[in-house]
Amino acid sequence: MRTKARSFLRSLSLVIAAGCILQATSHVHGRPLPLDSLVLNPKPDPKDAIATARWLVSENSWGVLNTIADDLGGAPFGNVVSFCDGPPNEGTGIPYFYLTTLDPTAQYALKDERASFTTSEYPVGTCGNRDPENPTCAKITLTGKLKMLNGNSEEAEFAQKSLFSRHPEMKDWPKDHDFRVFKLDIQNIFLIDWFGGPKPITLDEYLHPNRSRSRSTLELSH
Amino acid sequence: MRTKARSFLRSLSLVIAAGCILQATSHVHGRPLPLDSLVLNPKPDPKDAIATARWLVSENSWGVLNTIADDLGGAPFGNVVSFCDGPPNEGTGIPYFYLTTLDPTAQYALKDERASFTTSEYPVGTCGNRDPENPTCAKITLTGKLKMLNGNSEEAEFAQKSLFSRHPEMKDWPKDHDFRVFKLDIQNIFLIDWFGGPKPITLDEYLHPNRSRSRSTLELSH
Repeated sequence: MRTKARSFLRSLSLVIAAGCILQATSHVHGRPLPLDSLVLNPKPDPKDAIATARWLVSENSWGVLNTIADDLGGAPFGNVVSFCDGPPNEGTGIPYFYLTTLDPTAQYALKDERASFTTSEYPVGTCGNRDPENPTCAKITLTGKLKMLNGNSEEAEFAQKSLFSRHPEMKDWPKDHDFRVFKLDIQNIFLIDWFGGPKPITLDEYLHPNRSRSRSTLELSH
Repeated sequence: MRTKARSFLRSLSLVIAAGCILQATSHVHGRPLPLDSLVLNPKPDPKDAIATARWLVSENSWGVLNTIADDLGGAPFGNVVSFCDGPPNEGTGIPYFYLTTLDPTAQYALKDERASFTTSEYPVGTCGNRDPENPTCAKITLTGKLKMLNGNSEEAEFAQKSLFSRHPEMKDWPKDHDFRVFKLDIQNIFLIDWFGGPKPITLDEYLHPNRSRSRSTLELSH
């Protein structure tokens, strides 16, 4: 019996080892994975568009921030940036950025505030083998005004603390590069998280998901 | 001896199994990784900006495509899209897209061609633990005109074949959704792949990297 048990254990561990090696090599090529793969919270039901929108913004750590490039004929200019919407599990839904005014995005925004911010479920790692353009692999674009915050304001302090917590290396970025805290003042929400086109979400519903949910429950009960 | 060998084998396989489980759970949470983690070619030396730009565009399978939203006050509107620049290892550097005209991005482009396309090294998986906004984690923005191709042209056939090869599910997308092949006619290249600001790359250098390299070698030898 003891020999059989040992043999079973050995076979089991060999199978697990082989499976793991296969998984590790076929998936990660030995490279550390991007931080976004460490999902904090499970994805909401796609039927709950408001929760999905807030989840996408809270789970992601980067996206593309778009401004108008006056020196490129007024073309829309996307730029990869890091962001956060508040402390872990206490996100506000509002994306905050730490941008150097040496970078065109900050310079463009200071001349023309029109902007949008786009982020995808794909790098979060929950789309499985679905294509990044498959509508069930969620994506969100928040359109509004990109504003530089007053460095002495409470909001700038809150945003910078949250940004440094989510992006620890930011606190060591060069002091002479004039990094400033910016926020996207949201006016419009474009979310695709299923077939059938964008989900209609108002700014109020997005910013106050719990209030919206209570109201829906109230409406349903009458 | 046989017992010792068995015991050694068992211990070894148990250690490998434990290590793999630890790696798999801490990195991927049991989820399949995005396709972009399967890097085809190693990252070029950041000093070779042209090669880095072309590598970024060839290795990535998705990014953010920006157009001007006339119904949102002319705001720049980013949208997550899949793309490819040609067959594997034979990329052209030109991003091709498969867009439904039901989607705002295609609609905006048909009214105003000004556009940009942005993609990041971060989801490729080669930035390690560096922040997505760290300049050594490369990013590229191609600015130009977003054009719908004539469906009967050789270029559209080449692009669609390449897109369907890179994004196999596209060929099964709904026929009644009016998917069309678009290309970005590039006019300007913005690449950051190291400290010190964007790298100066001309369109000619980007589109003909080998010719540019030969010329540089020629200039150096004189």
